[in-house]
Amino acid sequence: MDTEYKFSTQVEWKGGKIGELQSDGFPKVNVATPVEFPNGVPNVWSPEHLFVAAAEVCLMTTFTGIAEASKVDLVSYKSSAEGKVERIDGKFRFTEIIISPEIVVAREKDVERAERLINKAKELCLVSNSLTADVRIDYKITLAAN
Amino acid sequence: MDTEYKFSTQVEWKGGKIGELQSDGFPKVNVATPVEFPNGVPNVWSPEHLFVAAAEVCLMTTFTGIAEASKVDLVSYKSSAEGKVERIDGKFRFTEIIISPEIVVAREKDVERAERLINKAKELCLVSNSLTADVRIDYKITLAAN
Repeated sequence: MDTEYKFSTQVEWKGGKIGELQSDGFPKVNVATPVEFPNGVPNVWSPEHLFVAAAEVCLMTTFTGIAEASKVDLVSYKSSAEGKVERIDGKFRFTEIIISPEIVVAREKDVERAERLINKAKELCLVSNSLTADVRIDYKITLAAN
Repeated sequence: MDTEYKFSTQVEWKGGKIGELQSDGFPKVNVATPVEFPNGVPNVWSPEHLFVAAAEVCLMTTFTGIAEASKVDLVSYKSSAEGKVERIDGKFRFTEIIISPEIVVAREKDVERAERLINKAKELCLVSNSLTADVRIDYKITLAAN
């Protein structure tokens, strides 16, 4: 792998509260201030949701990648994530993100290996390493029913 | 405004390299490792792109919101953003995000006001305040042709 990478995105204001987010060849995504804030727009992706999503998706892609490389027989993986924003010294910022993965594996021996790998994935996740917020994971790993 | 907010997202692995990102009522978004990394998937949103997008969109929503409140007559706003990832002490992380807004205003007097507001928007942006990366803006403000 290289030691330096660049990632680009583009945004265009469509008038009113709405913007359109894109990056080369990716599906376009409408964006706006979230309803939690004054003048927010419902049912549209917000900067705050994209931020939490970046950390949550990073854990998924990292974990499923190293699980495959380690031949863990993964049946399913889903997670929810919650980011907390607080006012610190007069400025709002994210102080905590909790990611809760639910992982199902096919074989008894994979339960312990999946646990090791989800902790390793958290350490490797470059998005989490780029945040001032505390990132915690609260995982549940189970064996698939036969 | 309150002093604490929470933002939630959910991810489900769809098998292979692909996950599905959602949040209550928002359009679903496919996600994967970016092509810049080994086994990346083209034309799909990645954690790294979502991360850069969060900072870029935050600047747009904050600027257009305060421009409206300040009665700046905004003709158009678009931006591009580039995030740089570097390996520091053996760990990859974002070290810099450069956001380049192109702002067009309708009235001569709004050029200077827009300049003041884009700098203020950068200070207010809660996503930028939650990153370890250095966030810089490189703006261009012009007067619309009559």
